[in-house]
Amino acid sequence: MHNDLTLTSAAAVIASGDISSERLVRDCLDRIEARDPVIHAWAFVDPELALAQARACDKAPDRLGPLHGVPIGVKDIIETADMPTGMGSPIYEGNRTLNDAACVALMRAAGAVILGKTVTVEFAGMAPPPTRNPHNPDCTPGGSSSGSAAAVADLMVPAAFGTQTAGSVHRPAAYCGIIGYKPTFGTFNIHGIRPAAQSLDTLGLLTRSLMDTEVMSAVLCGRSPDLVGSLGTLPTIGLCRTHLWDQVLPETKEAMTDCIATAKAKGATIAEFTLPDDFADLTHARDVISSYERARATAWEWHNHRDQLSGPLRRTIAKGFGWNYGDYQAALLLASDCRRRLADLFEGTDALIAPLTAGEAPADLNSTGDHAFVGFWNLLHVPSFALPTHTGPNHMPVGIHLVGAHGDDAKLSLVAKWLFDRVTQPPHSH
Amino acid sequence: MHNDLTLTSAAAVIASGDISSERLVRDCLDRIEARDPVIHAWAFVDPELALAQARACDKAPDRLGPLHGVPIGVKDIIETADMPTGMGSPIYEGNRTLNDAACVALMRAAGAVILGKTVTVEFAGMAPPPTRNPHNPDCTPGGSSSGSAAAVADLMVPAAFGTQTAGSVHRPAAYCGIIGYKPTFGTFNIHGIRPAAQSLDTLGLLTRSLMDTEVMSAVLCGRSPDLVGSLGTLPTIGLCRTHLWDQVLPETKEAMTDCIATAKAKGATIAEFTLPDDFADLTHARDVISSYERARATAWEWHNHRDQLSGPLRRTIAKGFGWNYGDYQAALLLASDCRRRLADLFEGTDALIAPLTAGEAPADLNSTGDHAFVGFWNLLHVPSFALPTHTGPNHMPVGIHLVGAHGDDAKLSLVAKWLFDRVTQPPHSH
Repeated sequence: MHNDLTLTSAAAVIASGDISSERLVRDCLDRIEARDPVIHAWAFVDPELALAQARACDKAPDRLGPLHGVPIGVKDIIETADMPTGMGSPIYEGNRTLNDAACVALMRAAGAVILGKTVTVEFAGMAPPPTRNPHNPDCTPGGSSSGSAAAVADLMVPAAFGTQTAGSVHRPAAYCGIIGYKPTFGTFNIHGIRPAAQSLDTLGLLTRSLMDTEVMSAVLCGRSPDLVGSLGTLPTIGLCRTHLWDQVLPETKEAMTDCIATAKAKGATIAEFTLPDDFADLTHARDVISSYERARATAWEWHNHRDQLSGPLRRTIAKGFGWNYGDYQAALLLASDCRRRLADLFEGTDALIAPLTAGEAPADLNSTGDHAFVGFWNLLHVPSFALPTHTGPNHMPVGIHLVGAHGDDAKLSLVAKWLFDRVTQPPHSH
Repeated sequence: MHNDLTLTSAAAVIASGDISSERLVRDCLDRIEARDPVIHAWAFVDPELALAQARACDKAPDRLGPLHGVPIGVKDIIETADMPTGMGSPIYEGNRTLNDAACVALMRAAGAVILGKTVTVEFAGMAPPPTRNPHNPDCTPGGSSSGSAAAVADLMVPAAFGTQTAGSVHRPAAYCGIIGYKPTFGTFNIHGIRPAAQSLDTLGLLTRSLMDTEVMSAVLCGRSPDLVGSLGTLPTIGLCRTHLWDQVLPETKEAMTDCIATAKAKGATIAEFTLPDDFADLTHARDVISSYERARATAWEWHNHRDQLSGPLRRTIAKGFGWNYGDYQAALLLASDCRRRLADLFEGTDALIAPLTAGEAPADLNSTGDHAFVGFWNLLHVPSFALPTHTGPNHMPVGIHLVGAHGDDAKLSLVAKWLFDRVTQPPHSH
């Protein structure tokens, strides 16, 4: 069984001829067959369609690209020409599009096999999904990229696309114990992805290896991957408690403290990083912007299929149509002002360690958890990683949020690798 | 025949009961029937479908909103649930979507009738469209919102949606002699609009009245229209020749000079407004960003239907895939740096008068003209109007470009109204 391979390892063993794409895809499909009746990570899988893609890769005279024959999962708000895109909504059940989303087309051109569509919360919002947490099916996997995170964590697929408008990549990554990557706003092309809020929506990656995020990012951006990935000097890392610190549970505080201690022991420079007081207002500003824009993006459904929208979504849309335009403009202004100031504050700092979630995944299937810890950073458009570094009191994953400067995803990735390698070494090798 | 009514006038006469929506829509359809065999402004019109919407408005017990019963045109890269969205490409011929684009749904909710789909250049790019200029069918109407501008100018419909990635709203507005409005980047919701380049694409409006742009903007933003529209004080207007001044033809220079003279005579403060030298590099930066992003957005068509893409588009996509990622990042950095500096430079200035096009519409149906005059402003994300103020040596329309500060569309609209009222008064009333 090869379904536990990372994306890059799988690409390597397929390239070397050790296994076929068909073999790998079959192993993933077997895992899905065995586990998905409990986990509910997939909205659509057609085994024959996945296998046909794999066989086409195996028969191709040349390697198509760096992901030749490797399966990935696609969040079900992302369009696929050969599979329905259901948006987690009965309105779009069986919805077909002529084209692939840009990210899907770029992955296929690099040789990837689209294994299937992963469960999304309704229109990437906050309603509870059917998906369970692979570490404990009584716990939420987080959302809205619920299926992508659960599928990757449960070894059903090496990597998957998620999207983030508040914390929809990082919260599921944290709760499911995998890596989440949310690049600088605008980095990855979002054509063919159902919008939630256009000034916040970002395509992100869910993987089990930082090398995998690097290779997928390189494909999407059209650059060479940095496979050596070494910082020239030891990093300077800021400890950023944020205005939400008193809502952070002990397990997250301990994970952050331990990461800071390890980084310091390994030579990093550590500094307190305090955000200006008015950054606390970004939480409200994000809520205004997100609901204002979501209301407009959902105007067709609101006016034509309101009875098929969930209660939570109807309330969000009603709230969004209710804002004064001045409230929305003020929220946008605060965000752009904070972005400018954060860029200055970042001078001399390579990355920040901040809270990722309150703590472990809640044992509550009626909620996907609280996105506040990540949401205001998302409004700041900065790149960030969810790194699964620790385990909490209930043996569920706990992670840290590693945040970089706007546009400097390359440096952030190197700091992430430096830190993650050191934090996740077995204790005896410390 | 009421097809020459502006959007706001039409809404008023329908609201007063003087004419029905059906009457107005019939008049527009008659105009289309008479003129479109020459103009080719429409990609799709189903008279029965338009009339059914009009009759539904006429029968509605209450007015749906401020646009009750008024027809508008929709550029054919914007999705409509009841009409195909062809993108100006054979690949999408007859393409149907489940949903309306956000802007279409918002217009319908305000009572508008979607008259049909207007011709777009292939994927809102640069290939020549079939559309002719209503003022002279041997001249280009401009592009890529070719059909929207020609239809509004030719009195087939009071207003239409366009989109702008370089100059695709303003150039057709200028060549066809109507008003173009391109808001601050991100102002109008773009869900359901085919992307060209995601950090540049903006939904815009084509109308024959500034009141119409104000009413449509208010509907899209969810605010009250400013129907009084009076500046508190006399405006300060900058004359901005830009780095492209030596490519500007005499008719445009004369239009700008005359507008400045009129503004000054009417009490405006006029100042030279000189952009820093490196703003000239924005022209190249926009080209890098646009082609880089377009290549990714067109990845599915490129890899699956390349033979159905036009030669010009294939060249743009190949160029876009050819950039180094560093080139793209450098272009983005220049743009954000110039945006920051322009905001500072705007202090104390209410609006700029700048070149809109080189001059009149070229008598060339194999090109849609040069977008350079507008394109670099579009990269700066600032709001702007194309105002049809003059006529050139070939009796074709000539206009000016009125540019505002980022986010201050409200003030720009007031300056536009102040200036346009004064410039377009008949000579004897000066």
